[in-house]
Amino acid sequence: MDLALLETPVPVVELDIVERNLRRMQDYCDRAGIALRPHIKTHKIPSLAHRQIELGARGITCQKLGEAEVMADAGIDDILISYPIVGQGKALRLAALARRATMRVSLDNPVALATVSEAGRIGGEIGVLVEFDSGNGRTGVTSVEEVLTLARAARDTDGVRFDGLMNYPVNARTGEILRELLPRLEAEGLKPAIISGGGTPQAFRTHEMAPVTELRVGTYIYNDRMTVAAGHASWEDCAYTVHVTVISRPRPELAIVDAGSKVFSSDPMPAGTGEGHGYFPAYPQAKLAKMSEEHGMVDLSACGERPQIGERLRVIPNHVCPVSNLHDRLAFTKGGVFQGFGAIAARGRSQ
Amino acid sequence: MDLALLETPVPVVELDIVERNLRRMQDYCDRAGIALRPHIKTHKIPSLAHRQIELGARGITCQKLGEAEVMADAGIDDILISYPIVGQGKALRLAALARRATMRVSLDNPVALATVSEAGRIGGEIGVLVEFDSGNGRTGVTSVEEVLTLARAARDTDGVRFDGLMNYPVNARTGEILRELLPRLEAEGLKPAIISGGGTPQAFRTHEMAPVTELRVGTYIYNDRMTVAAGHASWEDCAYTVHVTVISRPRPELAIVDAGSKVFSSDPMPAGTGEGHGYFPAYPQAKLAKMSEEHGMVDLSACGERPQIGERLRVIPNHVCPVSNLHDRLAFTKGGVFQGFGAIAARGRSQ
Repeated sequence: MDLALLETPVPVVELDIVERNLRRMQDYCDRAGIALRPHIKTHKIPSLAHRQIELGARGITCQKLGEAEVMADAGIDDILISYPIVGQGKALRLAALARRATMRVSLDNPVALATVSEAGRIGGEIGVLVEFDSGNGRTGVTSVEEVLTLARAARDTDGVRFDGLMNYPVNARTGEILRELLPRLEAEGLKPAIISGGGTPQAFRTHEMAPVTELRVGTYIYNDRMTVAAGHASWEDCAYTVHVTVISRPRPELAIVDAGSKVFSSDPMPAGTGEGHGYFPAYPQAKLAKMSEEHGMVDLSACGERPQIGERLRVIPNHVCPVSNLHDRLAFTKGGVFQGFGAIAARGRSQ
Repeated sequence: MDLALLETPVPVVELDIVERNLRRMQDYCDRAGIALRPHIKTHKIPSLAHRQIELGARGITCQKLGEAEVMADAGIDDILISYPIVGQGKALRLAALARRATMRVSLDNPVALATVSEAGRIGGEIGVLVEFDSGNGRTGVTSVEEVLTLARAARDTDGVRFDGLMNYPVNARTGEILRELLPRLEAEGLKPAIISGGGTPQAFRTHEMAPVTELRVGTYIYNDRMTVAAGHASWEDCAYTVHVTVISRPRPELAIVDAGSKVFSSDPMPAGTGEGHGYFPAYPQAKLAKMSEEHGMVDLSACGERPQIGERLRVIPNHVCPVSNLHDRLAFTKGGVFQGFGAIAARGRSQ
């Protein structure tokens, strides 16, 4: 099938680049002596998770229970949910997962610990990683004392096992915190079996920054404008492009493509790293300047050659994870040749 | 079923408010002598489209062929696609739709006209609305001469019928353009049967701004922070809320909820109309200040009372249309009582 016959807008994933990206990260982890536990939030596709494990990953990471359920259904049996699980309905679902997979959960508070304990008492012991914040301002306790309190509570709570620590993203502060924290934990017999760190952009510097034993990375499988801007990858390492069609040229310097925020998401680039909502490899000067839900407004004023109505363009998105989440399926290619569609099975599993 | 038993994050639509919003817009159109053709891009749910038609709407508007296919499958037989259709694959699909529904398509260029003509020659005549721009900078021709050229071409092309004009959003400039354009069209025997205008925020002023004969509005069915900010609606008119759970309180002034950009989209408020990504009716001072994919960071620093871990919160999103597109289903309530789930059948139909 000629790719030009695929209806647009359509996400296309080149499997040769995926394979290269997966091997590169696995090689780094092998050299650094770090276990790789890829985050499937980026791809949400069981066959790609299986490939990550075949290449050496220890297991996978999911952000939500619903993602873990899809992956367990596909036979993945070692899952970290890097997210606090709170509430009775979620405890029941976590218990069901614990009956068929090795489950670990990160948390930063006693209410989540009670939920995981309830799940573990029903479904089988669940590992707990205590999350600490190294400046991200998201989840994670903000003091060494709080880590110690939660670690002790996990040790003393039925249904759970204290397995270690979690942090996102790994940075210099992660290392500082661990230097203070680890001796205190060890003094109480709470040496962490796992120190889990995450984040694609700085992944290859993990070993320099902190004594992480497991690495959670997601975006590295596809890459995007952000990981290129961060220096993690080049345009040639971007496996995920969206094919779109020019549907209007209302003015000489403006092209409208058939994809807007419902295809690309509205995630902007981090301040100072680039404007617009995507990169056009065939028209590097074109700027996806503005979007409405189904329209992309492409500023061509800096382009010498300009695309015509009906022309198909490839776009590398700013941030591939939310884009992946917007589509039910994507097209796989290998060496540019269409291989079939893949269902994004864990798409939209935010519960 | 107690709403508190629904797993979060979950979109919840209150049908009593939906009914009031639908009747209010239909009443306005009836009084103004304008036909209502609701845009289903907001809800994407066939049962709601049928209710809009039962209350008096002339037909529906879709943005993409894929949405129109879902609606035609559900028995809707009068559809405007307010979007240029370009390409042979799309021509075939449009032809199939024209066999089972009255189809109209808007366009602003000869390539789209050729596509629609091809579809019409195969599937049955298709009405064409020529889109003109009144300052939005999206699709739409930018001169009266171009409208005339396309209208003549539509008249002279097999498989299509020139039905009139389309514009978005209707504003003062729409009226100015029409005052110049209409006599010129009439002089050539091209009086438009339909002048289609759109946009919820200024919908109730349509009759003051331009001689529109059909109104395309989508957001009015649910409303959101943007239509409230625009003065179109009040918080009590917001039918669509997302129920979320507080999963962490890492600092006294910070709550983390279990919903981020994969639940709310990243659409910001228009400049100067409000910060953050949602409104909490029970905590009006709380600000959904930052999001990552599955985390919402709620700034509580201005709140007297503050929500605890495990507490469920209702959130009115900034812009409900992309939020609706992120979820496979939602919960319906009537008078606050759970009525069942509704599939968002045309979600993700961007092709």
